[in-house]
Amino acid sequence: MSLVITGTVAFDAIETPFGKTDKIVGGAATYAGMSASYFYNKVKIVSVVGDDFSAENIDVLKKRGIDVEGLQVKEGEKSFFWAGRYHTDMNSRDTLITELNVLADFDPVIPASYQDCEYLLLGNLTPQIQKQTIERLEKRPRLIVLDTMNFWMDVAMDDLKEVLKMVDVLTINDAEARQLSGEYSLVKAAAKILKMGPKYLIIKKGEHGALLFDGVQVFSAPALPLAEVFDPTGAGDTFAGGFIGYLAQQGELNFNTMKNAIIYGSALASFCVEKFGTEGLTDLSEEKVRARVLEFVNLSSFVIK
Amino acid sequence: MSLVITGTVAFDAIETPFGKTDKIVGGAATYAGMSASYFYNKVKIVSVVGDDFSAENIDVLKKRGIDVEGLQVKEGEKSFFWAGRYHTDMNSRDTLITELNVLADFDPVIPASYQDCEYLLLGNLTPQIQKQTIERLEKRPRLIVLDTMNFWMDVAMDDLKEVLKMVDVLTINDAEARQLSGEYSLVKAAAKILKMGPKYLIIKKGEHGALLFDGVQVFSAPALPLAEVFDPTGAGDTFAGGFIGYLAQQGELNFNTMKNAIIYGSALASFCVEKFGTEGLTDLSEEKVRARVLEFVNLSSFVIK
Repeated sequence: MSLVITGTVAFDAIETPFGKTDKIVGGAATYAGMSASYFYNKVKIVSVVGDDFSAENIDVLKKRGIDVEGLQVKEGEKSFFWAGRYHTDMNSRDTLITELNVLADFDPVIPASYQDCEYLLLGNLTPQIQKQTIERLEKRPRLIVLDTMNFWMDVAMDDLKEVLKMVDVLTINDAEARQLSGEYSLVKAAAKILKMGPKYLIIKKGEHGALLFDGVQVFSAPALPLAEVFDPTGAGDTFAGGFIGYLAQQGELNFNTMKNAIIYGSALASFCVEKFGTEGLTDLSEEKVRARVLEFVNLSSFVIK
Repeated sequence: MSLVITGTVAFDAIETPFGKTDKIVGGAATYAGMSASYFYNKVKIVSVVGDDFSAENIDVLKKRGIDVEGLQVKEGEKSFFWAGRYHTDMNSRDTLITELNVLADFDPVIPASYQDCEYLLLGNLTPQIQKQTIERLEKRPRLIVLDTMNFWMDVAMDDLKEVLKMVDVLTINDAEARQLSGEYSLVKAAAKILKMGPKYLIIKKGEHGALLFDGVQVFSAPALPLAEVFDPTGAGDTFAGGFIGYLAQQGELNFNTMKNAIIYGSALASFCVEKFGTEGLTDLSEEKVRARVLEFVNLSSFVIK
């Protein structure tokens, strides 16, 4: 039994109104894996880096107990690199550099030891690689969560629709839900998207929280209002990792557990954005996470007599 | 004991992707008054119209049991008129026509019978008129709620800051909170605004719900995801009216009652946007409102073990 996560493991260079980093360890699988590791101790990563990714860099994952057997290291090649600059509102950003490097011809190899995969998170990557990953697992996992973005809707919509048929949960943001469905109303968008394959749809709204749809019920999760957002990089991946990590821990898959999983995922994301890069995800504890989750409870609870 | 509401009583002509109206009865005090009337039966309006506003038009208010003694009818003058067109997203709109007419020299006269005012809602109007209204009440009401908008921040910031010192609750949207405080983070914005006078700040976020701040606690209220929004006109006024109407009904002024008041206000606003103009506010019942409020409960409740 394990939780397998595919996605990028990469270098990021980030600039926000609060500061600037050199190349630091980032990538969807990194954030998601670190986040999931606070809930579940069998987290395994499928990804690829170049030989510029040092043993020390890999230690960021290993320290969180993450299995990196499926992390290919390509000799003589360079890791995926992204550089971006956030605007004052922290909601919009400019991409300054995108170097695909090893990602250009990434072929996801699933180690034999990963075939016990029960929970699969397909982090943001080409829909084709996401599909290959599912196909290379001998047994269909109990739960498949797919994260994607507008870019793949622009350049690979057909591939994306193929893989959508194969997953249980889709996580996208509100603009992406509108793009994917062609509907402005999120209620109508959700109805259309749920017909494309997923049983559950999570619409992420950043500082406005998230919505969960299953075709019958709707859940609206709040976001924690934060005084300081230092670096939003990886918030969505951290959310997805916390979400599936919590579900793996609970072992129960229904609407109510998904609601809580969204709260736990949001709590982890709130830690993530308070510091630069993955720094906010390095030294959490069960107590810290629980205290943060209780903040979400206080934030949104009301009693109608 | 009564709930006094100032604001416009006016004609609107509305165009949305779903249709178009001729001149229909609108205005901040109309929406707020109708909304409040579902919770409290002593709602009194202070406003002004021209003689183009027929007895039938005034009946829209009277039918809801609203006291119109403070509604001045100016012979030979015309009512305030606004025409607007909403974009497909329903969040942005173009103002096509604004005719101030009677509003240009509105002098709010408080009838003697209104001096029992315990709850005062200062709907969106010039800050100067809002201030005059407070000053013309012999006894300071138990609760003063102020609604305003970016326009007054642009043209009458000093006046606005004067009246802010005199009120208990301020309701504005997120962009306005940022403009008023000069802070992007809503947490920081709230802290600054609460130093300007109000004890409570409500930040309205439209389809993303609302936040309530009192300087110590924060409450995040969800918005009901709707399949169809026909006409957003008056949603904010309806919210404010439902909010203060519920508080007047309960007679209790604390953070927990305010939380519920926000849910009731949001429920009324959700009815408002489902139809054109004030139509959604004409034939509600206690049962309908309660059922809608329970939808908000289901939408946002979760249980952490």
